[in-house]
Amino acid sequence: MPGANGRARVVVVGGGFGGLKVVRALSRVDVAVTLVDRHNYHLFQPLSYQVATGALSPGDIAVPLRRILRRQENARVVMGEVVGFDLAARRVAVAPALAGSEPFTLEYERLVVAGGSAYSYFGHEDWRELALEVKSLDSALEVRGRILQAFEAAELSADPPERADWLTFVVVGAGPTGVEIAGQIAELARDTPAEFRSSDPGSARILLVETTDRVLSGFPPSLSRSALRALEKIGVTPMLGHTVTDIDGRSIELATADGTRSRITARTVVWAAGVTASPLASALADAAPGAELDRSGRLTVEPDLTLPGHAEVMALGDMVAVRDPRTGEAQALPGLAPVAIQQGRYVARSIAAGLSGRDMPPFRYRDKGSLATIGRARAVAQLGPLRVGGVVAWILWLVVHLYYLVGFENRSVVLLRWAYSFFSHGRGTRLITEAAGTPPWARQGAG
Amino acid sequence: MPGANGRARVVVVGGGFGGLKVVRALSRVDVAVTLVDRHNYHLFQPLSYQVATGALSPGDIAVPLRRILRRQENARVVMGEVVGFDLAARRVAVAPALAGSEPFTLEYERLVVAGGSAYSYFGHEDWRELALEVKSLDSALEVRGRILQAFEAAELSADPPERADWLTFVVVGAGPTGVEIAGQIAELARDTPAEFRSSDPGSARILLVETTDRVLSGFPPSLSRSALRALEKIGVTPMLGHTVTDIDGRSIELATADGTRSRITARTVVWAAGVTASPLASALADAAPGAELDRSGRLTVEPDLTLPGHAEVMALGDMVAVRDPRTGEAQALPGLAPVAIQQGRYVARSIAAGLSGRDMPPFRYRDKGSLATIGRARAVAQLGPLRVGGVVAWILWLVVHLYYLVGFENRSVVLLRWAYSFFSHGRGTRLITEAAGTPPWARQGAG
Repeated sequence: MPGANGRARVVVVGGGFGGLKVVRALSRVDVAVTLVDRHNYHLFQPLSYQVATGALSPGDIAVPLRRILRRQENARVVMGEVVGFDLAARRVAVAPALAGSEPFTLEYERLVVAGGSAYSYFGHEDWRELALEVKSLDSALEVRGRILQAFEAAELSADPPERADWLTFVVVGAGPTGVEIAGQIAELARDTPAEFRSSDPGSARILLVETTDRVLSGFPPSLSRSALRALEKIGVTPMLGHTVTDIDGRSIELATADGTRSRITARTVVWAAGVTASPLASALADAAPGAELDRSGRLTVEPDLTLPGHAEVMALGDMVAVRDPRTGEAQALPGLAPVAIQQGRYVARSIAAGLSGRDMPPFRYRDKGSLATIGRARAVAQLGPLRVGGVVAWILWLVVHLYYLVGFENRSVVLLRWAYSFFSHGRGTRLITEAAGTPPWARQGAG
Repeated sequence: MPGANGRARVVVVGGGFGGLKVVRALSRVDVAVTLVDRHNYHLFQPLSYQVATGALSPGDIAVPLRRILRRQENARVVMGEVVGFDLAARRVAVAPALAGSEPFTLEYERLVVAGGSAYSYFGHEDWRELALEVKSLDSALEVRGRILQAFEAAELSADPPERADWLTFVVVGAGPTGVEIAGQIAELARDTPAEFRSSDPGSARILLVETTDRVLSGFPPSLSRSALRALEKIGVTPMLGHTVTDIDGRSIELATADGTRSRITARTVVWAAGVTASPLASALADAAPGAELDRSGRLTVEPDLTLPGHAEVMALGDMVAVRDPRTGEAQALPGLAPVAIQQGRYVARSIAAGLSGRDMPPFRYRDKGSLATIGRARAVAQLGPLRVGGVVAWILWLVVHLYYLVGFENRSVVLLRWAYSFFSHGRGTRLITEAAGTPPWARQGAG
């Protein structure tokens, strides 16, 4: 049963790269789209680590969803968290993000779920608080406060070993995000010594812990070697072949493959390892008997991104594994923005095709390459057979990221900040800000 | 007893306009300066209300103190809160801003205290949480979240009276800040209707509550009238002659002079009324027998800004009232940045003069005028005998504020944001972000 005005109702869950692309690509299709997200903004997640080190402001990389969609009249935005799916009744249960407001349901003819993924703490949920990640904006802001406070504490400490503990930073996971954040902390430490009088941030140790035997293991080995050298050059100590076995807020314990354990005192640990699909994947699987999840919690979807047995439900992005049309094997694509964007575009086309009774060929990912940056003016890039390192890769990285930044204002502000940061070795937004507390209406149970 | 290297030690408490000016103006004086502040940044406070409405990012109006002072070799920065003065021993007790770190003391030959002021809730401390102010950066960010969430809640509500409650905003106090924040909320409401589908932010009511019979009572009556008309034109409802008698988080009760009481349901109340000096004023008074505080908690200082009986201690800014050299009356100067800056410069000169045995004439404030802005492209200005309103005053306001913004980067980013905001009627940083939690070392009592 379509909506009041006869248009098919499409509910899109998640305003990340994939979900937002679905909504935007439906702008000229005769449907009524509702986008549900816990946050009121779209986050340019590949740069959130730069917020964690004060290089960029939250407003530089996050844009209100309402603003992005203000001119798209067939779309509305609902700020809330999806808490359940009723696939038989074609309904989604939503808890408003605003404490005290009543839960409600949204009906759909087409459902698209793009919940993304989070870091996995390998079963140690207690580490989550001790070793924050930089993927979400709120967490990145908290990491920023912790890093900056560690430098402040080192400056106040009169005890050299204690000072060294404050100036030891451990980054867990040497994928693109881990490499980027380690590089940024190293540069932050190297750029700021003139600001301190007692301690020397330049003496900070930045350890990059990685279980495998190389950094950026998703890249070709030659680029991994090049990235490793670049990291060492800017002062990062890679600890390859090490696994985290304990974190207690004051130190971290590592083990090598042969079982040797060592403990490093460090006040600041940043997490960028493992991956676990959004809980929306298992919520969908619970609602659809026979649906499968892989080891990382990814939902298996058909080659056309539909949920098995539910052609009206599609899922995409790094919360899904796509079944190969030939082998039948579920395959997890890399957790990159281009994958989500291509899938988002495909989903929108598929919805439009469904309305006009056309069939769609299976989704096919076109790999346009990968990029990772290592501090200022260094990066590695893989573009098909092409492998590039150094400044050329960095300029490529810059162009690609600026190109994809949503909205004119952010683009120019970010460029200005980067240019300034680059030439001055300064960081504009190294602010230690506090919490936003609970609003009074929430505390008083009003609604 | 001077410091280790024989230079007189100057401790400056507070990195606002006044304290920072003292430090910077001492850059070529042979002293060792320690600046103590609870925050790691200097805040351009006159613009913090723009953070509260998403027009500016925190990083646009706050700059790390260490960054500002990085090239001033005779200055160091300590992030901590002053918790006591021992004037006899010439020592200041500091609690580090970082939880878990040990308290410590700073010795001085010269002490300068510039703690500023806060809003007074007229004895109703419980209102502080229910009606946040926009003076501090953290509070302004919290106000931003509350205002934006109110619009989101209105959009989700299916009940027209409830929706109206969410779209009712009350600003208490019609001084420059109250007028500015009311104007900004009105423009935010007027600029965003296209972003909403169910509710109409343009129907929002913005009430500006003021006890006296005019807005901007520090300005000449003709400018107050002009400001009143401008406010009404952009959709603010001034409620002159009304006093707040109750706030409960869902409504606010007002009383008129004749005792008539009325209650207005409103979810969002912003506070910009009353003034109370920093608690450092009374802490200093407690340490110096015979020192006086006025009704607003301001410390009375001599015409040369010294503490009575303590020529080595000076205090300035809106936490002090200065004794008139002729009448002997303590006089509170307006709580404006120019007052603090002029006093800061005077204090630095006085310290330099003291080192070379010269005397200083009493401090004299040179009133360069006042400015207040009312939304986009409207302001009022008083410059000596000159009174200006409208666009001319607003351009003046813009030039003056950009001129005073500390640091090149912020100036250009702010200008860019303003220009963009002005022409697009958009607001770049309307983000609802969360809290920064307690870091693990604090929670575990580490030190």
